[in-house]
Amino acid sequence: MRAVIPYKKENAKSRLSSVLDLHEREEFVELMLKDVFNTLRSAGIENIDVLTTSRASIAPDLDVGIIENEKGLNEAINQYLASIDEPVLIAMADLPLLAPCQVMDITEKQTDVVIVPGKGGGTNIIRIMQPSRFHVKYYGSSFLNHYAIAQECGMSVHVYDSFRASTDIDEPQDLVELLVHGSGLAKEYIKERFSMRSGKGRVAILSDTCRIASE
Amino acid sequence: MRAVIPYKKENAKSRLSSVLDLHEREEFVELMLKDVFNTLRSAGIENIDVLTTSRASIAPDLDVGIIENEKGLNEAINQYLASIDEPVLIAMADLPLLAPCQVMDITEKQTDVVIVPGKGGGTNIIRIMQPSRFHVKYYGSSFLNHYAIAQECGMSVHVYDSFRASTDIDEPQDLVELLVHGSGLAKEYIKERFSMRSGKGRVAILSDTCRIASE
Repeated sequence: MRAVIPYKKENAKSRLSSVLDLHEREEFVELMLKDVFNTLRSAGIENIDVLTTSRASIAPDLDVGIIENEKGLNEAINQYLASIDEPVLIAMADLPLLAPCQVMDITEKQTDVVIVPGKGGGTNIIRIMQPSRFHVKYYGSSFLNHYAIAQECGMSVHVYDSFRASTDIDEPQDLVELLVHGSGLAKEYIKERFSMRSGKGRVAILSDTCRIASE
Repeated sequence: MRAVIPYKKENAKSRLSSVLDLHEREEFVELMLKDVFNTLRSAGIENIDVLTTSRASIAPDLDVGIIENEKGLNEAINQYLASIDEPVLIAMADLPLLAPCQVMDITEKQTDVVIVPGKGGGTNIIRIMQPSRFHVKYYGSSFLNHYAIAQECGMSVHVYDSFRASTDIDEPQDLVELLVHGSGLAKEYIKERFSMRSGKGRVAILSDTCRIASE
């Protein structure tokens, strides 16, 4: 099993700009990438590639294959899928709650495809046994896209049900899940900058410099 | 195993008032209650109670025991827990993605307590083998509260990891998860009133009467 993590650092996570400045967002996404890498490696995946538009954005000490591709996300991943002939797991770089046990669970499923939904109709992880038979279509309701693509290709699909694997970090409110349930590098980074504000409803984050998180 | 569903219909889900009027919200929560009831019953739980401030708010055809209690959520549930001497599953009434397989999974865990986190630090389900040894503390970061309470009581705890069981419906954005992943009465109700609007980020809901859903 091979893994690929699509990763973009420059001006990443713009929807977090109400709570993290540009430099902080770029530091944060780098730590999330390391968390995802550590989880995949702890789950026993040796060959981990990072698909990026800029080689320089990858920390030199990260034991990954770097695939540089200027093309858009879908085109770059589909070119990657066409270039390999072993089972592959595509994991997004913003899954700091993902744990090794979920990765092992996902890789052991017998179906042709395993899809882990993301928040708001997205896709956090796809595991494909025969990459050449599949193509990705991220953005919009990508979960429904990928489910339909697998069915059109006559591939069996398992939708993997995990709160941790389905928690991607895109918006300020997502940082609460990291503070409550996280334990890695990205969690520590956010813990140093935010605290939690409890009320009757959902917990909100409170920036330590009193920049109240507005969603 | 007994189940109890805390349920309040009057002016429910005020945070959905930007997309559903009062009458719609009350219809919607009633359908979500039926979805949760159907799931618990399909999972083999015979004795299902509804803990409510108003008996009249429960549909007469729902095969449940009705426990009327004017007190606040925590006090009412703690009184309930003190009154029963069998394992109990407390399920919130706004879990329309919950499936029977998750309920069976949760009831079969061997730990003293099983906690299913909700979004934003909440608690969606607690299963307690010995109710008299436990007490609840909902609101705020209730997941961390309940985890600490179990530990203080020397009770073993399992945190159950499920995207479906952890998806509670409180805010407009949550309705997207229902449209993408749901299949019950509440899903149909929302499907009749909203469509999905795709962009590069997460899918948003679009009211069919063009009341754009604002979070």
